[in-house]
Amino acid sequence: MIDQLVEKIKKTNAPIEVGLDPMLAYVPDHIKEKAYKELGETLEGAAEAVWQFNKGIVDATYDLIPAVKPQIAMYEQFGIPGLMTFKKTVDYCHEKGLLVIGDIKRGDIGSTSGAYATGHLGKVTVGSKSYYGFNEDFVTINPYMGTDSVQPFIDVAIPEKKGMFILTKTSNPSSGEFQDRLVDGRPLYELVAEKVVEWGAQHMGKCGYSYVGAVVGATYPEMGAVLRKLMPKTYILVPGYGAQGAKGSDLVHYFNEDGLGAIVNSSRGIIAAYKQEKYAKFGPENFADASRQAVIDMQQDIAEAIGRK
Amino acid sequence: MIDQLVEKIKKTNAPIEVGLDPMLAYVPDHIKEKAYKELGETLEGAAEAVWQFNKGIVDATYDLIPAVKPQIAMYEQFGIPGLMTFKKTVDYCHEKGLLVIGDIKRGDIGSTSGAYATGHLGKVTVGSKSYYGFNEDFVTINPYMGTDSVQPFIDVAIPEKKGMFILTKTSNPSSGEFQDRLVDGRPLYELVAEKVVEWGAQHMGKCGYSYVGAVVGATYPEMGAVLRKLMPKTYILVPGYGAQGAKGSDLVHYFNEDGLGAIVNSSRGIIAAYKQEKYAKFGPENFADASRQAVIDMQQDIAEAIGRK
Repeated sequence: MIDQLVEKIKKTNAPIEVGLDPMLAYVPDHIKEKAYKELGETLEGAAEAVWQFNKGIVDATYDLIPAVKPQIAMYEQFGIPGLMTFKKTVDYCHEKGLLVIGDIKRGDIGSTSGAYATGHLGKVTVGSKSYYGFNEDFVTINPYMGTDSVQPFIDVAIPEKKGMFILTKTSNPSSGEFQDRLVDGRPLYELVAEKVVEWGAQHMGKCGYSYVGAVVGATYPEMGAVLRKLMPKTYILVPGYGAQGAKGSDLVHYFNEDGLGAIVNSSRGIIAAYKQEKYAKFGPENFADASRQAVIDMQQDIAEAIGRK
Repeated sequence: MIDQLVEKIKKTNAPIEVGLDPMLAYVPDHIKEKAYKELGETLEGAAEAVWQFNKGIVDATYDLIPAVKPQIAMYEQFGIPGLMTFKKTVDYCHEKGLLVIGDIKRGDIGSTSGAYATGHLGKVTVGSKSYYGFNEDFVTINPYMGTDSVQPFIDVAIPEKKGMFILTKTSNPSSGEFQDRLVDGRPLYELVAEKVVEWGAQHMGKCGYSYVGAVVGATYPEMGAVLRKLMPKTYILVPGYGAQGAKGSDLVHYFNEDGLGAIVNSSRGIIAAYKQEKYAKFGPENFADASRQAVIDMQQDIAEAIGRK
């Protein structure tokens, strides 16, 4: 999938993923009203509203982007009906030719990580049959528990030709509390980065990049520049663009000289674009067109920034 | 819930939780065969087998223990049907008067952690209504992303009077890779422990313990002793007993002088007890009776160890 991801990024000239992280507050009223009329103000009604919202955005943007990153928490908050919408979204994005990065940030002791890996990347065996659970192409992983919590994901990913992104330096304000602490004079996130490289050597794509990537927030561009050099063959998933504050010019150093090596996420900035003054002219009815325009603007912002490198 | 947990621990004299972490390999053949006959060798069939297995164990042990800890990964591996069994298990355990610790190890940027907290501890608002998603009493949390990833759980937990356990020093072999690294001469897990105390001060129970607990593996008893002293008002969830290698005597220093302050998890050692030589006489048909005996033996092992303190 890392080869497919790189190929799609080249084809679209858009190292961009749309974060499908729907809060009900982002869903236009007309969609919610229709869903509640059908299914009531229930978890099922909410899940249907989120599904229709996602579908609108995917239909309006799938030809411009290589991948989406649904954040599973936003679905889990609605319990089982929410997770059914997560699954439906993954399947629908596959139908539209998109790669799906499941933002699940899992990680546990070996046998348990194995179960997560099976459920999200691989197939579970039931008697003589086997089935995909959620079937994303990539997942995100929390490394706090170390190698034996990550290895089961790699073991499942290799035969499936799937991948993962390991949290290295996250985009949130308090990410530094533990991640920036100095160990032998170097921040912890650099130690994680070294492990990412080591883990990734087991599962390299033909494109020269590893199937084992890293998450490095756009909100810390100086650290991004260091991490880029420490992990030359690692694809970097970059959250924090747009609503979290980072701009195209902050992203320059996350890319390699080949113009590759990073994929930038924007969630709220795209899926709730119609709520921004800049895109208000579209109106809630045309929220998906606003999202399409926001993708085009983001693509240009980043292309210009990389061009300027 | 921390008050309820302490009260139940005193009443049962069992600082024990049963880890409901079913692998299909643990489920006796007669249960699987019946489920597959009804629903086929499908995800639904597997989920039904797991549910019947869980129900058997809960029915045979609920009067002996204060709490269960279902590991959500083991359900997530079966996709939506698996998660339906997770939810059914949570609800059934509540019916039987058990507290439920959702072993979910989540943690993300603020708004996303908020969604997880809503889905697992709180209620999500849909129009004029609100609903519990999974409705556990406690959850486990990964602290790698820092305070702003933990605070949303506390914010949801306070009005719900629910709690959480923060991964501090985990039980797995490679937990030391990052957690043991020295920061200013002290291991990272001690820094996490200090934060746990700080976070916990916001949400104290009447019993003198905080609703914000810590996970400290039984497999590292010397570190457990240090962490016990660093976090005197923190309840410690102790995984690693039994199948992971720790014995009652390893647990002594996880408890306070009041005989409280820790709750010990055993998963495989209890739910798959019938597969051990020691309990083989029960046979697969009586797997639940084997589990009951394993709980009794564990309770005695720990009571003796604490008594010897």
